[in-house]
Amino acid sequence: MLFERLDQELTRDSAMPHTYYEVLVRLSEVPGRSMRMSELADRSLSSRSRLSHAVARLEENGWVRRETCATDRRGQLAVLTDAGFAALAAAAPGHVEGVRSHLFDALTSQQVQHLGEISALVADRLRESCSVAEANSSCPEADLTDPGRANSTIHAV
Amino acid sequence: MLFERLDQELTRDSAMPHTYYEVLVRLSEVPGRSMRMSELADRSLSSRSRLSHAVARLEENGWVRRETCATDRRGQLAVLTDAGFAALAAAAPGHVEGVRSHLFDALTSQQVQHLGEISALVADRLRESCSVAEANSSCPEADLTDPGRANSTIHAV
Repeated sequence: MLFERLDQELTRDSAMPHTYYEVLVRLSEVPGRSMRMSELADRSLSSRSRLSHAVARLEENGWVRRETCATDRRGQLAVLTDAGFAALAAAAPGHVEGVRSHLFDALTSQQVQHLGEISALVADRLRESCSVAEANSSCPEADLTDPGRANSTIHAV
Repeated sequence: MLFERLDQELTRDSAMPHTYYEVLVRLSEVPGRSMRMSELADRSLSSRSRLSHAVARLEENGWVRRETCATDRRGQLAVLTDAGFAALAAAAPGHVEGVRSHLFDALTSQQVQHLGEISALVADRLRESCSVAEANSSCPEADLTDPGRANSTIHAV
């Protein structure tokens, strides 16, 4: 219910579903506001196919452009444009207020702490089972062609 | 990450995304295995448009059929077919095992209790803010044409 509501509010107020918002946030946080598509996928909560679709639509909007990666021919870069940054800056305050209002305002500080611990445990376990599955080539999120994957264990919650 | 993983596993193992699974579960739990579309939407975690899309696909699969509601001309019924029930019965054990493995096995019984309390608070708050927004005709989930909505406050978590 929470994710659905936040997605609906972002779509209504800023014409972007949460998947798009997440891509823009990721790109805005890194130097050069650009990231390899494969790394973006690793850091994303969405599946690779959903992410590819989102980036294609963001490119149509002029919020992201794709470039060939200079140091790695296999890699393609996603680059946040100035228009994309402006769209994110316009959407962020409302979304932050939504998260605060729908999630944090409902909880005591102790409950926020508990939720943080619970989320970290579940996320760690998911990453771990993915690593095992990856070794067996059956993890839905695995991309064995990406040498950077082993080092990119940061996932935003 | 959790929802994404469960969705991927259901799709991989049972050829149904979680939205479809949820519709089949809802229908399987009620007498006659049928429910008005509007009530199904109220009890669903998905948006109305996503739900309509899911039911259309489930109908193509032969897992659900739609019927005109005898007592309410405006209402359309979604009915679970025997094939749909069989598909759900085949998918459920793997999905239940996934939820257990990815969520509950990571947590202590106290953490499960905390998560239950936290989820209930957030869900209650979302329902409440939706009721207020509904009165102002701006709730994304509101359907003012549905007289049954005010009484259907049960949402599965």
